[in-house]
Amino acid sequence: MATIKDVAREAGVAVETVSRVLNNRGYISEKTRDKVYAAMQNIGYTPNAFAQGLSRQNMDCIVVIVPHIVHPYFAKVISSIENEAARRGYKTFLYNSNGDAERESFVLKICQSSFMSGALLFSADISEETLKSIRIPTVLVERNAIGNAVSVQCDNKKGGELAAKHLISKGCHNLIVLGTLNNIDMPGDSRDNEFVRICEDKGLKVSRYRATSEHYVSMDYHDIIIQALNENPDCDGIFATSDLIASQIIQECARRGLSIPGDIKLVGFDDVQLARLTTPTLTTIRQPIHNIAVAAIEAIEKLSRGENVNRNIVLPVSLIEREST
Amino acid sequence: MATIKDVAREAGVAVETVSRVLNNRGYISEKTRDKVYAAMQNIGYTPNAFAQGLSRQNMDCIVVIVPHIVHPYFAKVISSIENEAARRGYKTFLYNSNGDAERESFVLKICQSSFMSGALLFSADISEETLKSIRIPTVLVERNAIGNAVSVQCDNKKGGELAAKHLISKGCHNLIVLGTLNNIDMPGDSRDNEFVRICEDKGLKVSRYRATSEHYVSMDYHDIIIQALNENPDCDGIFATSDLIASQIIQECARRGLSIPGDIKLVGFDDVQLARLTTPTLTTIRQPIHNIAVAAIEAIEKLSRGENVNRNIVLPVSLIEREST
Repeated sequence: MATIKDVAREAGVAVETVSRVLNNRGYISEKTRDKVYAAMQNIGYTPNAFAQGLSRQNMDCIVVIVPHIVHPYFAKVISSIENEAARRGYKTFLYNSNGDAERESFVLKICQSSFMSGALLFSADISEETLKSIRIPTVLVERNAIGNAVSVQCDNKKGGELAAKHLISKGCHNLIVLGTLNNIDMPGDSRDNEFVRICEDKGLKVSRYRATSEHYVSMDYHDIIIQALNENPDCDGIFATSDLIASQIIQECARRGLSIPGDIKLVGFDDVQLARLTTPTLTTIRQPIHNIAVAAIEAIEKLSRGENVNRNIVLPVSLIEREST
Repeated sequence: MATIKDVAREAGVAVETVSRVLNNRGYISEKTRDKVYAAMQNIGYTPNAFAQGLSRQNMDCIVVIVPHIVHPYFAKVISSIENEAARRGYKTFLYNSNGDAERESFVLKICQSSFMSGALLFSADISEETLKSIRIPTVLVERNAIGNAVSVQCDNKKGGELAAKHLISKGCHNLIVLGTLNNIDMPGDSRDNEFVRICEDKGLKVSRYRATSEHYVSMDYHDIIIQALNENPDCDGIFATSDLIASQIIQECARRGLSIPGDIKLVGFDDVQLARLTTPTLTTIRQPIHNIAVAAIEAIEKLSRGENVNRNIVLPVSLIEREST
């Protein structure tokens, strides 16, 4: 059975260099990389990534636990995390929890005993007790820091402020905000809270609608949109706390013959690909998803090395103006 | 260090039962599962999934290699595969190849030496030579079977036929088909080939446009859509070979004041979530994505057990009629 030393001898490079190629770490020239690959092929060596990881008790694996994958926000986040993790030499494990906190807790424990490098968790319901018992680096995305976990979130409050000021600057007087109802205190709640606060400060009328977890799971918000439009016939501006909700508001307005942005101006949240695929395209609050992925993986790396990290990382958002306002 | 035997003793069940709970295999009652979890917690046992896998040279892991994750088709496929894999007790590894055949080949070799259960590959460019050298079960999705791999694809030809017959039945005479240009022979090509064949058989005018790999990577097809509409001012029906392309046709028609379905009728392909989020919603050819995931994982399971499998699995498509026709 060929070893990494045989590869180094065949390629005429140091064992350390082969290791760097295998782990995709540090700078290696294209030429050296090709030599190492050629040597591996010549002598029939292929690494067992897991045996290596077990022997040094670090699998160079990051586990991503999400409630679902089809939601455009999660698709974009998973893609960013996978890219950033691969760039830094980590493999990515994907776990779809369907929002079950007990399964999430079980998976986290397995991650810990399996020498995973760290876990990224998008969970509304995981308990503080579980997070206190986990000793591998754990990052919560869009949830307030609890237990030993680090929190990475976008500046949701600022997002609500940007949306309110933009709609007000466009002359809107009768506003609707459509957000998601959470059982617990979530950072995303400040999107609508801040929006309402600013509108009321200016003496504007604002009606607030909150979707339920059934809407969130089915990703279908039409019934609450219909209710909001029926109850507010004079509405001239809407803030939806996700682009997914905003795309369904466009559909419902078209069915009523309401023009966007002519009759109603609309702002979404996330700036996922969908925001560029609707007709009209969406003005939205851009989440810094790439930077969220980078910050989360950097936090895992620092925690692995025993370094201190900021336990509450908040990243800036921006307003992207398109056709809907 | 607690072992699986200690867990069985503490829970008052057979070692086999604990193993079934850990591997999520076979029927276990909610009550037994709870007892086993409680016993594991009482004695502080957590399994190392990878050490277990190494000792029996099977990691119960399926590796999914996709060119990108943000594309709505891949997001839906990954979600279906992860769900089906978890249901059958497999973990899911995700690998984003960015379409690089050399990296795909390297990852496949690592999978093999790392006792992965199998690999699902969405690759346009991987070589027959590589696939001949891989001995772990490998499934190609939407690519013709080569090497030792099994192919799972939807009935692309039937999809083209359904789209053509539907647009013709709606009275369209001047048709456009917008597909993707491939360097090699791909099953998806028969979507547009069959569409053109049927339209020409009926003596109808049909103009064919093929996007380049740059369009595919950027996911932005506007320039070729603009060209197609400019060159065919009398067009009254369009078949787009993905819902992603179709959503951008809706945008471009709206900018020209062309009504869909009033002036132009439009059929997409895939039936991803996007098809229900556009305005108007999309008539489209539904890919049986859940069944593709099931067939792919079943093929991996059968190949692992040394059973024969159909090397060319073709699954039926259907037309879903919505507002765009």
